[in-house]
Amino acid sequence: MTAFLAPLLNVCDGAAAIAFYQSAFGATVLMQTPPESGSVVAHLSIHGAEFWLADESPAHHNFSPASLNGTTVRLILTVDDPDAVFNRAVAAGATVVWPVADQSYRWRLGRVADPFGHHWEIGKPLP
Amino acid sequence: MTAFLAPLLNVCDGAAAIAFYQSAFGATVLMQTPPESGSVVAHLSIHGAEFWLADESPAHHNFSPASLNGTTVRLILTVDDPDAVFNRAVAAGATVVWPVADQSYRWRLGRVADPFGHHWEIGKPLP
Repeated sequence: MTAFLAPLLNVCDGAAAIAFYQSAFGATVLMQTPPESGSVVAHLSIHGAEFWLADESPAHHNFSPASLNGTTVRLILTVDDPDAVFNRAVAAGATVVWPVADQSYRWRLGRVADPFGHHWEIGKPLP
Repeated sequence: MTAFLAPLLNVCDGAAAIAFYQSAFGATVLMQTPPESGSVVAHLSIHGAEFWLADESPAHHNFSPASLNGTTVRLILTVDDPDAVFNRAVAAGATVVWPVADQSYRWRLGRVADPFGHHWEIGKPLP
């Protein structure tokens, strides 16, 4: 059996979210619903790290962090240079939750909240 | 640059969640905090598809679906045999949100809610 897991982020504004993740993380769009479909669903890649986003739809149990006033899943983004990726995300509009620092559990890691309320932990394991 | 993305699921009972994901998805534990640490953090793998879970901590912006009454991120689990993986998860205690079916967007896919409130879409692209 093979398995592949990718998170799908519910957001309040799919088009704006695509633009943000492109700017903040250099994400590329692998697939995107056509504008005339109304509701945005997109498949993105951050240098090979795949995720999805979609406009929220509470009737279908799809809530954005803005609607629930918090988020239930963190996105753990492991990269070669956490400081650079973190700083670029903040420059693009993410909010610092915790700055990048060496953690007691042997990761160099920081945490941001993106403009849609999703939280990203950006780090790498320390040797 | 290389990047790797894995979701971290906040749950209300980390030890029970590990047991559930082992039973439902055949997950293996790559890392787990020692029992004496009090708060559970674990790194799991479903046949190579990695994710994390942790006991929730609202003071640190980490909310479980039970606390927010919903979830902000879906887990898209792509597998060879969605029907078998879906049925095993339901037998282990997951709740059917939508049964497995061929979707208009050319995936065979179903959705379950796990006992901790996280939603898994289990499917595969159709040829």
